[in-house]
Parts: sequence; C-alpha cells; structure tokens
Amino acid sequence: MPQKITSPALEEAVKRLAKLPGIGKKAALRMAVHLLEASPEDVEALVAAIKNVKKSIGVCSICGNWTEKDPCVVCESPLRDRSVICVVEAPADVLAVESSGYKGLYHVLGGALSPLDEIGPEQLRFRELMKRLQAGDVREIIAATNPSAEGDATAMYLARLLEPLQIKVTRIGFGLPVGSDVRLADEATLTHALQSRREL
Amino acid sequence: MPQKITSPALEEAVKRLAKLPGIGKKAALRMAVHLLEASPEDVEALVAAIKNVKKSIGVCSICGNWTEKDPCVVCESPLRDRSVICVVEAPADVLAVESSGYKGLYHVLGGALSPLDEIGPEQLRFRELMKRLQAGDVREIIAATNPSAEGDATAMYLARLLEPLQIKVTRIGFGLPVGSDVRLADEATLTHALQSRREL
Repeated sequence: MPQKITSPALEEAVKRLAKLPGIGKKAALRMAVHLLEASPEDVEALVAAIKNVKKSIGVCSICGNWTEKDPCVVCESPLRDRSVICVVEAPADVLAVESSGYKGLYHVLGGALSPLDEIGPEQLRFRELMKRLQAGDVREIIAATNPSAEGDATAMYLARLLEPLQIKVTRIGFGLPVGSDVRLADEATLTHALQSRREL
Repeated sequence: MPQKITSPALEEAVKRLAKLPGIGKKAALRMAVHLLEASPEDVEALVAAIKNVKKSIGVCSICGNWTEKDPCVVCESPLRDRSVICVVEAPADVLAVESSGYKGLYHVLGGALSPLDEIGPEQLRFRELMKRLQAGDVREIIAATNPSAEGDATAMYLARLLEPLQIKVTRIGFGLPVGSDVRLADEATLTHALQSRREL
C-alpha cells in the first residue's frame, strides 16, 4: 500500500532511507515524516552523527578494526589476552564476536579468499598478521571467518600458512548455521561457537 | 542482546538513529554499520536528502499542508473537487488520506482541541478555514481528525462553528479503530471511513 507522495524532496529522502538495511518504503516514509515533524536541532544532530561516524572512524594499523584512535582500544588494552588472536573477515564481525565476551585480540582480514572475485592472499591482510606473530607471544589463532565456502577456504589457508610457526589454529564452528553471517549471530551462539572451537 | 560498542562516534550514531520511529538499538547498530561500509557518496546523498527534506519543505499558506511551493499542488490543482474540504490535524494525516484516493481539498488544523494542553480554537487554524469558506464554493467539510477525545471534540466544535453557514459537516468514522491515529491507517480502512462518513 504505497502512499502517494507529491514532494520530490520527501520522495528523495524516502528513497535514500529505504536503502538502509531492514527498512522498507513504508518504514522509510514514517522516518521521513518523523524528521519533518522533529525539531531542527534533532535533525541536525542526526545528520552530524551520521557524518561523524564516517569521518572520525578509521582503521587500526595493527588489527584492521574500525577505530577512532590508532592503535585501537583493543590492541592497546592491558586487560586483553595477547596470546590469542581472533581472525575475522570484516570490522562488523569484531562487533559481533566482542558481544560474546571474548577477551583476546583481533585481526581483520578485509574479506575472504575468493578466486572467482580475484581475491587471493595478497588482497587480504595476511602479511600484517604474519608480522604480528613474529614477536612470538601468540599461542592460538581463532579463525572466525564466515561459515561459507570462502570463509572455510580462508580458515584452511590460515592453518596451512601458520603450520611452520607451530601456532595452534582453531576454527569456530559449533552453533553457527552454515550460510549465515558472523555479524548476524547472537551472543549465545557466538559464545558457544568460541567454546567449541576445534583445531584445524 | 546489546552489542558492546567501543567507539563514541558509533555510539552517538546508534543513539541518534534509534530515535527514528520503529528503530530499536539493534536495528540502529545495523544501520550505523551499514553506513560505515557504504560509499562516502551514498552517505553524503542520504545526509543531503535528510537535510533537504527539512529545508525545502514548508507549509502551504492556504491549507497548511507540507509543500515545496506555495500554494501547494492540491490547492492549485484544477482536477480537485473544490466543493469538499477534508479537515485533518496534521500534515502527515494528509499523506494517509491522500492514499485512499480522496479527490477534494484539505485543511490542516495543526492539532486538536485540548483544554488540558491549553490548545483552544485560537491555537488551531480555524480562522483560516472560515476565510476559505467565505467564497461560498464549499458544500461539505469532512472532519478527519483522529478518533480520540480531542479529535472528536474538534469535530464537534467544527460542526457547531459551521452551523450558521449551512455547510454540511461530516465525520469519518466507520473503520477507524478508536485510539489509533489517522496517519497509521491503511488505504482500505480510510476509503471505507470516507465512504461511511456521517453528518454531525
């Protein structure tokens, strides 16, 4: 039941808002109407927050996660277990794993191996990971790439790559439904998946 | 299951996005993450659209509806039935009534009578409505205020106010669940409500 809109500005706002994840045309219209009725200060604050999230968030030079300062809070924290690194595909995956209560470090690869998309090891942050392992503090690498063909292949590659270093490579697995995304998993599933990690 | 967020900029964006109607903290986080991953051009376009909807949309000097030019498209259209005016509380209500296929004119009161909130007839656009009726073209006023105590009182006030002018005042009613809002009603319900309007 699309409502007729006669204002190009409203139509454009609805179109743009409907591009947000999980937002349909009806929800986008409700949002646009809400913005029209909201105070100019509230709209300005929303716009500023959206711009700021993009502007002030960069990438940690160590782990590759989103951060406002470099190195990031996790990489600098003295409370983190520096003997474990959880390897994920994307920064959004860190947010999800973090919610499980995981207390080790992270490494963001920037994707998964995918020959069809011409993404090989050189396109991902494996070199940076190897450099981090040179200090010799790390005992275990947890491969928390997505449970997909590409994510599994990336985990296997990681296991083979680190074999000479005698570092244990484990794979989260139990609890994650195949075909889904790490970032969409809930805390309980991820806690379970971390506990039941197995050596590759 | 709130996910832990360590970035103030991300937290602020989530807080602001969660103020949008129908958006919880989890959905807001998904949106913020989407914005972080989106291209700068897409984020800029969204921000521009939000700002523009607020900036370029004003109020029609005749009917009080949102419009980008004054008078609005409806007030100026030669295709509209100028003998009927549908009186609503807010501009968002016009969008909803419009979706039912209604082809008359509108008049936005800017609210409903509410003595407790110190909203009397002077605070609403009744004077402007009386001025519009002076030309003598209007045969019927449809009171499409919300089905609430305030909306009903406003409709009754309207009926008494127009009694001397011998203009028929009708009230939409059938189909609208009491306690709900006009703006949230679907097309079918509103079409029904318009058809079954009764004289006050």
